[in-house]
Amino acid sequence: MTIETAIDALRKTLGEKVSTSDAVRDHHGQNESYFAVTLPDAVVFPESTADVQEVVRICAAHACPIVPWGVGTSLEGHALATSGGISLDMSRMDKVLAVHAADMDAIVQPGVTREALNEDLRATGLFFPVDPGANATLGGMAATRASGTTAVRYGTMRENVMAMEVVLADGRAIRVGSRARKSSAGYDLCKLMIGSEGTLGIITELTVRLQGQPEAISAATCTFDSVSAAVEAVQLTIQMGIPMARIEFVDADCIRGFNAYAKTDMPEKPHLFMEFHGTEAGVAEQAERVGEVMSDMGGSAFEWATRAEDRNRLWHVRHNGYYAVKGLRPGCQAVTTDVCVPISRLAEAVEATRADIAASPIEGPILGHVGDGNYHAALLIAPGDAEELKIAKDLAHRMNQRALDMGGTVTGEHGVGLGKKRYMAEEHGDGWAVMGAIKRALDPQNILNPGKVVDLN
Amino acid sequence: MTIETAIDALRKTLGEKVSTSDAVRDHHGQNESYFAVTLPDAVVFPESTADVQEVVRICAAHACPIVPWGVGTSLEGHALATSGGISLDMSRMDKVLAVHAADMDAIVQPGVTREALNEDLRATGLFFPVDPGANATLGGMAATRASGTTAVRYGTMRENVMAMEVVLADGRAIRVGSRARKSSAGYDLCKLMIGSEGTLGIITELTVRLQGQPEAISAATCTFDSVSAAVEAVQLTIQMGIPMARIEFVDADCIRGFNAYAKTDMPEKPHLFMEFHGTEAGVAEQAERVGEVMSDMGGSAFEWATRAEDRNRLWHVRHNGYYAVKGLRPGCQAVTTDVCVPISRLAEAVEATRADIAASPIEGPILGHVGDGNYHAALLIAPGDAEELKIAKDLAHRMNQRALDMGGTVTGEHGVGLGKKRYMAEEHGDGWAVMGAIKRALDPQNILNPGKVVDLN
Repeated sequence: MTIETAIDALRKTLGEKVSTSDAVRDHHGQNESYFAVTLPDAVVFPESTADVQEVVRICAAHACPIVPWGVGTSLEGHALATSGGISLDMSRMDKVLAVHAADMDAIVQPGVTREALNEDLRATGLFFPVDPGANATLGGMAATRASGTTAVRYGTMRENVMAMEVVLADGRAIRVGSRARKSSAGYDLCKLMIGSEGTLGIITELTVRLQGQPEAISAATCTFDSVSAAVEAVQLTIQMGIPMARIEFVDADCIRGFNAYAKTDMPEKPHLFMEFHGTEAGVAEQAERVGEVMSDMGGSAFEWATRAEDRNRLWHVRHNGYYAVKGLRPGCQAVTTDVCVPISRLAEAVEATRADIAASPIEGPILGHVGDGNYHAALLIAPGDAEELKIAKDLAHRMNQRALDMGGTVTGEHGVGLGKKRYMAEEHGDGWAVMGAIKRALDPQNILNPGKVVDLN
Repeated sequence: MTIETAIDALRKTLGEKVSTSDAVRDHHGQNESYFAVTLPDAVVFPESTADVQEVVRICAAHACPIVPWGVGTSLEGHALATSGGISLDMSRMDKVLAVHAADMDAIVQPGVTREALNEDLRATGLFFPVDPGANATLGGMAATRASGTTAVRYGTMRENVMAMEVVLADGRAIRVGSRARKSSAGYDLCKLMIGSEGTLGIITELTVRLQGQPEAISAATCTFDSVSAAVEAVQLTIQMGIPMARIEFVDADCIRGFNAYAKTDMPEKPHLFMEFHGTEAGVAEQAERVGEVMSDMGGSAFEWATRAEDRNRLWHVRHNGYYAVKGLRPGCQAVTTDVCVPISRLAEAVEATRADIAASPIEGPILGHVGDGNYHAALLIAPGDAEELKIAKDLAHRMNQRALDMGGTVTGEHGVGLGKKRYMAEEHGDGWAVMGAIKRALDPQNILNPGKVVDLN
């Protein structure tokens, strides 16, 4: 009953689907953030639900931890095997199994990335809207309840995953949710599994909602002289009920990073990046109304990106924001934050964060999905510099505390992983103990991504 | 440790908030459906979260069942104390605690009804959109994951409850969810509690999302010569992505009931009742497009209800559909069904149901929230007639089986209660056992609404 005996047993059953090579383990020990490199003992590449069930049964028999892996774009160390054991790489389960155009849904394996799905949908007039920037896998996105630039209009993974197949800690595969658009048939296990970060089950199939390609799309940017004017303009726009498809805040530091990264020449001022979806007339009406709000708040005239290639360039830059911003300090690591507050507190929260970072010795560009009240600072530190790490963590801590004081959350979309667990007791009170009770009931041996989300002791 | 000793202890602590009078117990033993009258041993009227905690602690100490009660509009016998014990009547907890207009949310006690909340919001320009017809309490609506006529546009209670306070089976009060619009902070306990029908905890406070009153509203009806033409027109409308606020199917039998109930003179043909929300221009554009679809499918010209009083009359009739339809057979009981299927299967499902009922000796008008794929038949039977009850249950059974075969659910919005539990194993497979494991973890004594949703044995 050890990790070693588990790996021996896995090899016997799964053969070449199991790797203990240094290169493979090393790849699965990396993360996009500042967490220490942590190698799993082995990496397993399942090709079917039956493979996943086999892996879980063997690991359960040997009490070996299992940590699911998508493409490693997580920012909170979720996919690190911090208790050892195996990394379960879902990349070979990458088929789009069905597209139901009439029902506007698709069934996919967890290793399908959002870009691959949208590529597959190109001829159908449909698209999958959730867009975290990174080309993450849909399994990983569901596991962290991801969202991104379009959540303000289309919702997060919470709203866009209708059903899943999940392998439990004892190897049973269950189906949660259904292809019906709504149901009152018992506890919402689908929503419980979404955001559970691999700690309650391993996602082996997803049914996701699709949207019709809008008849008309237009995108624009608008600059402001101050952070607060930009954010207040967003608050007003949302309160007016204008159905923005995207409304993103990007501060002047970010723009500096974007310009360097993508060779653009945007003015180094706070920006809003916006997109409108609808009928031709509807988009024109939305844009006119938003233009009035922005102008009233001191915003510039809109810089339009009407051609598809201009829009794509705009969002490509935004999507690579994390890497662009890290480019401001070559070789740095980033401590990312991810708070989300009620809209009415947003300008105050962003302004306080801005001032706090400005008073510190490190850089921390701010950007965010402000239509949802969600924003990030990327706190740039030198790798291995303990003092800078402490400064960044203190800044992040104040930002998190501020969000909680305002009735918000310490993570709008990145998840808990390793980085946010210390806040769970404060954010949820006794609710965190209830999460622990559910974990214990579903995974009594604590083999599924142990140490993430909850502490079982 | 009996129900009797529990009631003695409750009386000592809560005094006049506890009633064992026949009249009060009788009122709380009734239901809107065909389930047998089942009196609780006592009724308790808590006035605060602290009262609810006290009740739960006492009942836990005496192993006494607790069955929450809103206003008794449930259709599946959820609120019947089938294992005895107390009915926990939440009607004294009926305060709107806060309205945050800038954040478009409100905090309410569970005994607030949806109409009372909307009355309270009248001056704010905001409204609470979820509309199951009956003037249910918000606590009850959350507990059954209710929806209704507007879910096609605004979502169900699942999408419209942001946070709750819930008293657990051991008396602890926890907060689930937050006022942030999204979060990835751990397991989604808020969504787990929504739809748990009082079996995992007792809702003592809710934070609900509000919507801005649309600038323009218009409503219309349209008649068809056949059920399938009407339903296919809905499928097309939804697939075109037109953001209908309401699109309701009502069959000819229902219209007959409506005409008698409300003294209207609608043609006795299959109808769609529709409502459009948006800007003036947006509503006009939507109506034009939908009109084209309806006309292509053989629908009549629209009968418009543009004035607010005409719209209110239209929706008043629809909202009283259940009672109007029961009026077709004076003194009858109704076995209601509540299936929801993927949109592409809707016309086929409704048509098969229609034919099945037509071939039976009882009446069963059909109506539904067809934009979601959800529809109901009200199977009208003579009270106490065992043969008719069997016929109705057999019809309902075939309808449920058909929905499951099509990838749908046996309950779109009414919940499991007593009536749908027999389908849970088939609908969820081993997932139903997982629900049982969660119930056991959170309520090991099985005192919270025992016998509903799951079976613990």
